[in-house]
Amino acid sequence: MADRMIKTLDEAECLRLISPGGIGRIAYQSRFGPAVLPVNYKMHDGAILFRTAEHGPLDEDLRTGIANAEYEVAFEIDDFDMAARQGWSVLVQGAAHHVQPGAEREAALGAGIEPWPGGERELFVRITPARLTGRRILPTP
Amino acid sequence: MADRMIKTLDEAECLRLISPGGIGRIAYQSRFGPAVLPVNYKMHDGAILFRTAEHGPLDEDLRTGIANAEYEVAFEIDDFDMAARQGWSVLVQGAAHHVQPGAEREAALGAGIEPWPGGERELFVRITPARLTGRRILPTP
Repeated sequence: MADRMIKTLDEAECLRLISPGGIGRIAYQSRFGPAVLPVNYKMHDGAILFRTAEHGPLDEDLRTGIANAEYEVAFEIDDFDMAARQGWSVLVQGAAHHVQPGAEREAALGAGIEPWPGGERELFVRITPARLTGRRILPTP
Repeated sequence: MADRMIKTLDEAECLRLISPGGIGRIAYQSRFGPAVLPVNYKMHDGAILFRTAEHGPLDEDLRTGIANAEYEVAFEIDDFDMAARQGWSVLVQGAAHHVQPGAEREAALGAGIEPWPGGERELFVRITPARLTGRRILPTP
């Protein structure tokens, strides 16, 4: 399988790849150890933004952590073509933050995030990238 | 967006969904806080099995943790149809373990995992599910 190579992506390329939004996966420390859950996100003012249900399982897990000043989480976005055995992944690491009512929330609403499931998903979570890394798997030239 | 609902999946359904193998994402505590990386995995003897480069970044991060008796990680597998706005995700939580040389390694080699990138990826990591949860997002009937 030596016909594929890994190329490290710079920050600009990472930002370009994740800017359309879509499905990303948030990883965080839960009551049961590390956890990962997919969410529908958008980029907004250079940060990851997604919605979740207030007092839902994800919120409850995050809330405990966010109560601390700096709650570090990870957010992963990828796109792989299984048939062609190639693709990319980007890892965002940074602090998670609950968007507050008022101007911050108004701006977040303007981002136009549409969570797929129905019900109340009125809590916005923002992840400000402190570290942005990525890699691409592609055919060896 | 109230036309989609979330259905919780039982363990049998989770196992069925993840049994074909493919791309999964391991989440763990790295030197820089939580991290998530995609890997190509297979199911083997009821456990997640994947290969990585010995002394590569993932190995170095995991090695520190695995040196402790019980190193909890998370492993996420999903499949979403963006156009139809539906799909599923499964979360495996459990201890990560370095497959040891000898009979255990021979069995792991028999699982036929083919890492995409070239180079030495001779370290097998096994995750034994201690907790298996999943959910499906589907149209509201």
